[in-house]
Amino acid sequence: MSTNNEEMIVTPWEVSGRIDYDKLIREFGTDPLTLEVLETVQKHTGTLHPQLKRKIFFSHRDLEWILQRYEAGERFYLYTGRGPSGPVHIGHLVPWIFTKHLQEKFDAKLYFQMTDEEKFLHQDDFTLEESEKWTYENALDIIAMGFDSKKTKIVIDRKSMDVLYEVAIRIAKHVNFSTVRAVFGFHDSTNIGLTFFPAIQAAPAFLESALLGQNVPCLIPAAIDQDPYWRVTRDVAPKLGYYKPAQIHCRFVPGLGRGGKMSASMPETSIFTVDPPELAQKKVLDAFTGGRATVEEQRRLGANPDICSVYSYDYFLFMDDKEIEDLRYNCFAGNILCGECKHILAERVMKFLEEHQRNREKAKAKFAEYLFNPKDL
Amino acid sequence: MSTNNEEMIVTPWEVSGRIDYDKLIREFGTDPLTLEVLETVQKHTGTLHPQLKRKIFFSHRDLEWILQRYEAGERFYLYTGRGPSGPVHIGHLVPWIFTKHLQEKFDAKLYFQMTDEEKFLHQDDFTLEESEKWTYENALDIIAMGFDSKKTKIVIDRKSMDVLYEVAIRIAKHVNFSTVRAVFGFHDSTNIGLTFFPAIQAAPAFLESALLGQNVPCLIPAAIDQDPYWRVTRDVAPKLGYYKPAQIHCRFVPGLGRGGKMSASMPETSIFTVDPPELAQKKVLDAFTGGRATVEEQRRLGANPDICSVYSYDYFLFMDDKEIEDLRYNCFAGNILCGECKHILAERVMKFLEEHQRNREKAKAKFAEYLFNPKDL
Repeated sequence: MSTNNEEMIVTPWEVSGRIDYDKLIREFGTDPLTLEVLETVQKHTGTLHPQLKRKIFFSHRDLEWILQRYEAGERFYLYTGRGPSGPVHIGHLVPWIFTKHLQEKFDAKLYFQMTDEEKFLHQDDFTLEESEKWTYENALDIIAMGFDSKKTKIVIDRKSMDVLYEVAIRIAKHVNFSTVRAVFGFHDSTNIGLTFFPAIQAAPAFLESALLGQNVPCLIPAAIDQDPYWRVTRDVAPKLGYYKPAQIHCRFVPGLGRGGKMSASMPETSIFTVDPPELAQKKVLDAFTGGRATVEEQRRLGANPDICSVYSYDYFLFMDDKEIEDLRYNCFAGNILCGECKHILAERVMKFLEEHQRNREKAKAKFAEYLFNPKDL
Repeated sequence: MSTNNEEMIVTPWEVSGRIDYDKLIREFGTDPLTLEVLETVQKHTGTLHPQLKRKIFFSHRDLEWILQRYEAGERFYLYTGRGPSGPVHIGHLVPWIFTKHLQEKFDAKLYFQMTDEEKFLHQDDFTLEESEKWTYENALDIIAMGFDSKKTKIVIDRKSMDVLYEVAIRIAKHVNFSTVRAVFGFHDSTNIGLTFFPAIQAAPAFLESALLGQNVPCLIPAAIDQDPYWRVTRDVAPKLGYYKPAQIHCRFVPGLGRGGKMSASMPETSIFTVDPPELAQKKVLDAFTGGRATVEEQRRLGANPDICSVYSYDYFLFMDDKEIEDLRYNCFAGNILCGECKHILAERVMKFLEEHQRNREKAKAKFAEYLFNPKDL
């Protein structure tokens, strides 16, 4: 029985409640990533990425179609994005890791859109100055992931509007207020910048085709809360003579608290990429687990990894298949205590952050290199 | 008594019916250009421009305020615009002539916006390719007017969106769908590009202040059908800490037919700047006049200049005060016949077009010089 507090809400601006991913597939009208589809993917990637095996990416649209195109010799490009409204937490990195994997395996160009007007238009007290700061800071995190600099272009909306607007108005001409009201829950009191914004977020899905003057398939890896944008984008595509963009959707990474996704608005349960490793360690040690009230009880009855935020982190980001299987067994069996688990995760988080922060420092010198410039085409 | 056909409609996209300018002042809430205001203008311009004497510019907002600022040593800039949806006709030139006069007398910078997405968003079958063509063609007409190239910047929306969008989203954040529905008559079925567009047209009213980082008063000379944009712009101004733009509004130049303004959609009653002079001559000779059925009757009873399109042209564009006064007298008195009048106007139109077309040819080499480039600041 669900209470109001637990009601599932999944929109581009809010994710809350207990997420039922099967229900999302039905409600959004996407397709589950079946074993059959995954086999086709594996033909091209050799091994299956852990995020696919673990159903972190769990849903798609037209993935088979884009792979057929690929097999017929037609290259696709990748498009994903980030709304730079605050610091990046390690939950954000999950789809980025997978996007990088796709880029490597399919030798694909990537447009990484940074929607540096979105939060400003959405939230009264969020300023363009803040947006500018977070855009730069978040771009460093993107670059630190090690995307191929020759094939990756960071498209910052407010720096690329000469090019984006051209595509956006062609999209916008086919999207009316009724549609964005129905799809995004906009109201009569929604500002006209925000009601136009879906056209801006849709634009990179056609950008390569528009710039090259020929149809190029596009694959969008992103969390499923962004799906409303792609529904609108797909409706418009045939009216502009473009391919519908394909998508592959991932789950939300849980926070370190009890339930809910990791969110920059709850800093104590989120590990930010710029957290000093010792602070991150403390957050992990304070995390919510699926453990029992006493050591004795846990040894006797075992604990519950399925509600444990520490286990989630190992599952989403840090452990390989053998490790995660062993951990799951030992947790259920009461062979391992939460304290031990936390220390193992904390060590890995600290090591990860140290390396990421080194790469982030190096990213400062590479910023210009990654920035989208239509003249480079 | 007004019939449906004569009902006055004045919106940025439609002007029809019999125009009652006093009613527009009341409905739009603007101020009439009184003798007192004109005297203040004349202090700075020496003589009063014919378009002011003749009440072609007839209404304003905050003109006194901006002149007070000017007297206190604070310079203002001018902003006007053109939606490049077809060829320029000589009716369009009326406010441009006055804008040039203001530029000269007040040594003012001018932003000339070309809204090269407006018609595309407004009309199903109007393409961006057409828009591109008319943008260039219309820009030649603007340049041919002889605006000071050092002080005049043509801002083409799709070429300047990196800069305009920044200002537009700050405006858009304070304008909601309800407002643009009420002000512009938008519907739920209006596309989201068009509902955003008012923010783009408002942007140049704050552009100089935004670019310089300090408040600069702005005066907008334009036909009164554009007023809805400035009402929205003025509402937003204090929320952004900017001055409200002042306006000075002109009437619509009538076409050569019976009633109605000159319009590119009625080529036979419009004289285009690119018309071969002989074609323009023919259009004038075919024009609707206030003449009588027979020569005898006209000699006896006189004719009516107030409904005569030929007289309108002389009044709006071609005759000086003495000439127009004489013509009016002689028309009422039956001293002059419509044929004579048409020949006089046709000669002037042909001479004007020949010169304008020479300047238009020269403008081709100056296009880049006039184009807005924020880096020039």
